Amino acid sequence: MSLREEALHIHRINKGKLESKSKIPVRNAKDLSLAYSPGVAEPCKDIHEDKDKVYEYTMKGNMVAVVSDGTAVLGLGNIGPEAALPVMEGKAVLFKSFAGVDAFPICLNTTDVDKIVETVKLLEPTFGGVNLEDIAAPACFEVEERLKKETDIPIFHDDQHGTAIVTVAGLVNALKIVGKEMSSIRVVANGAGAAGIAIIKLLRSYGVRDIIMCDTKGAIFEGRPYGMNGMKDEVAKYTNSERIEGSLADVVKGADVFIGVSAAGALTKEMVQSMNEKSIIFAMANPTPEIMPEEAKEAGAAVIGTGRSDFPNQVNNVLAFPGIFRGALDVRATQINEEMKVAAVEAIASLVSEDELNADYVIPAPFDARVAPAVAAGVAKAAMETGVARIKVDPKEVAEKTKQLSIIDAE
Amino acid sequence: MSLREEALHIHRINKGKLESKSKIPVRNAKDLSLAYSPGVAEPCKDIHEDKDKVYEYTMKGNMVAVVSDGTAVLGLGNIGPEAALPVMEGKAVLFKSFAGVDAFPICLNTTDVDKIVETVKLLEPTFGGVNLEDIAAPACFEVEERLKKETDIPIFHDDQHGTAIVTVAGLVNALKIVGKEMSSIRVVANGAGAAGIAIIKLLRSYGVRDIIMCDTKGAIFEGRPYGMNGMKDEVAKYTNSERIEGSLADVVKGADVFIGVSAAGALTKEMVQSMNEKSIIFAMANPTPEIMPEEAKEAGAAVIGTGRSDFPNQVNNVLAFPGIFRGALDVRATQINEEMKVAAVEAIASLVSEDELNADYVIPAPFDARVAPAVAAGVAKAAMETGVARIKVDPKEVAEKTKQLSIIDAE
Repeated sequence: MSLREEALHIHRINKGKLESKSKIPVRNAKDLSLAYSPGVAEPCKDIHEDKDKVYEYTMKGNMVAVVSDGTAVLGLGNIGPEAALPVMEGKAVLFKSFAGVDAFPICLNTTDVDKIVETVKLLEPTFGGVNLEDIAAPACFEVEERLKKETDIPIFHDDQHGTAIVTVAGLVNALKIVGKEMSSIRVVANGAGAAGIAIIKLLRSYGVRDIIMCDTKGAIFEGRPYGMNGMKDEVAKYTNSERIEGSLADVVKGADVFIGVSAAGALTKEMVQSMNEKSIIFAMANPTPEIMPEEAKEAGAAVIGTGRSDFPNQVNNVLAFPGIFRGALDVRATQINEEMKVAAVEAIASLVSEDELNADYVIPAPFDARVAPAVAAGVAKAAMETGVARIKVDPKEVAEKTKQLSIIDAE
Repeated sequence: MSLREEALHIHRINKGKLESKSKIPVRNAKDLSLAYSPGVAEPCKDIHEDKDKVYEYTMKGNMVAVVSDGTAVLGLGNIGPEAALPVMEGKAVLFKSFAGVDAFPICLNTTDVDKIVETVKLLEPTFGGVNLEDIAAPACFEVEERLKKETDIPIFHDDQHGTAIVTVAGLVNALKIVGKEMSSIRVVANGAGAAGIAIIKLLRSYGVRDIIMCDTKGAIFEGRPYGMNGMKDEVAKYTNSERIEGSLADVVKGADVFIGVSAAGALTKEMVQSMNEKSIIFAMANPTPEIMPEEAKEAGAAVIGTGRSDFPNQVNNVLAFPGIFRGALDVRATQINEEMKVAAVEAIASLVSEDELNADYVIPAPFDARVAPAVAAGVAKAAMETGVARIKVDPKEVAEKTKQLSIIDAE
């Protein structure tokens, strides 16, 4: 069977990938009296008296909503909420398989920012966290910002922050190989979508000062008279301080790092040759990268990462989101802040030991079973240290629990 | 341990009762390529081309939302959406345990009818059906009516129709014992809430013509100058055609059937003594019925049912909703219409054979494993016959499948 046939087959015979499961199956009258009437009134009464007990007696504390409007699904674009459901079910499956986080797809029949925000707020009693997924820019930024302000549970747009965290983890290790520092590198990021903007924001938290972002019209700079929007105006304020104008080919000259979240073929061999020595390339366009790894290598790049599993250094979000939510949920964090993201970066990067580190191994493999426990523990610790945790838990216990809940096979 | 302690204990150690479960666990790269990227793009593309394929490739076709605003939870009243969550999780567990229907709690942080309706409509891509639960009257009527009009999936307010279906099934059998006909009985219903109104509507579908409904102010009649609302105006149009005025004690005189969905002690021995001979009493106030069965019996009632498991003839909604949704989902019904409800009544009533039928056994036991399969088959058949089914399925197969999916122990 082809991949297409096999994928359709497993979706068809299982009717999707997710089901609800009873932790307390009801087989007889005794079960019923405890799980439902009359016994169920007891936790109801206790939660009514003290709302926080919803975390003690219900599924809420381990349940994440995977929310999408279906406007930017995989590389398929705006295919609508029904067609997005297989992806959201898949995401829920990954949450469960990698870190024991219960997750449930919420595919919304609207692309209106106000309605998405309001709906998620109305769903807040049911969920311990919200993973926004495959919502197109710029709506995704506003949805996330508003929900972060207007709810008390962690809100995380994975297409932005998951990608950013894994990319930056790879960069942390790549810089060790080439012997450069975050504070002195020039980074050129191509693609001013959700992921690109999140990456450069996280790089700034890491002390990167010299960043130029390009869109299809070339370098973005403050006051650029064409092709700007609110997000790009924002970007222009903290990047490209010299207001360099020009195409990607122009501005990539002399750069140390290229970050591509754009389109196949956007980076040529000639462009790589024009970069600074020991250049680092993350070419993450899917399914075809901005430049193929062998070409980038021939052109002199020192470290190359892509989004693909068949090349070294795969930037795969699954390294981040399961452990991040595991850690956030376990301390009942009210948000996922910058420090928690940095902790996730550190946890992922640190799993590549100095002995193992080489140009083809700056990022752990997606099925490295050490990753989710390490990320969860780091995130939980950072949440407690920054005062966004509502309960205290030993990070070692968080790691141990994550390990026990994960079902992935170590590779 | 007391019931309270035991109930709190099982809720605490399990952190609620419901979890998400992967039908296709992801343990390695091969699994990932099929359940998630890149394979998942295939069902996405197919659904984008033909939206109906969402039923083929996703969980939607077996997934029911259990929606509540927490305004009328059990006998606890308006305790809010968080405190309602244990009940909604419990309901989801019953759906799964009795009929293999996946269900998920949606506890909404609003009591505004417009917002509830809009939210459920926005969630429609994700769910194959909606069970409204514990929403106070009169909001529940408008929510249900509007959602029935404005969505293409079955909408069912269980507090209304589940109770009505089981009560009427009991009445069908009770009338056989006393030798009376639906068309000639006088029914007095006490309590003009969601369940009461649904019961008298379903009784009309069964040919009952003489109904008087009472609220706390006595008999409802057209033009009553006190304590009316939109729903009661409606009720007054098709009940109490003689505009009889008076208290429950006044109007219950000579009645054949008393239906109580009101409060403990509402019906006295004297009132029962004033009823017609061979009277039938369904006293369903919880936890304490309108009259205790032994008192009603002493006062001359021929058949008595309550909402309690420790008396004969328990009116328990679990006899209805799992099989109703199983049948509706299996034929992809666009709604749950009156004929499907009548089919559920017939299925439930018919499981009490003529040999077994007696005053203490007019309703099957909640854990009678024959019920859900029979209800599912009947409902699926009625949906197909009335043109609301989108696919055809052999009702026998529906029954067989329901039997296989149910995990309850036959009593």
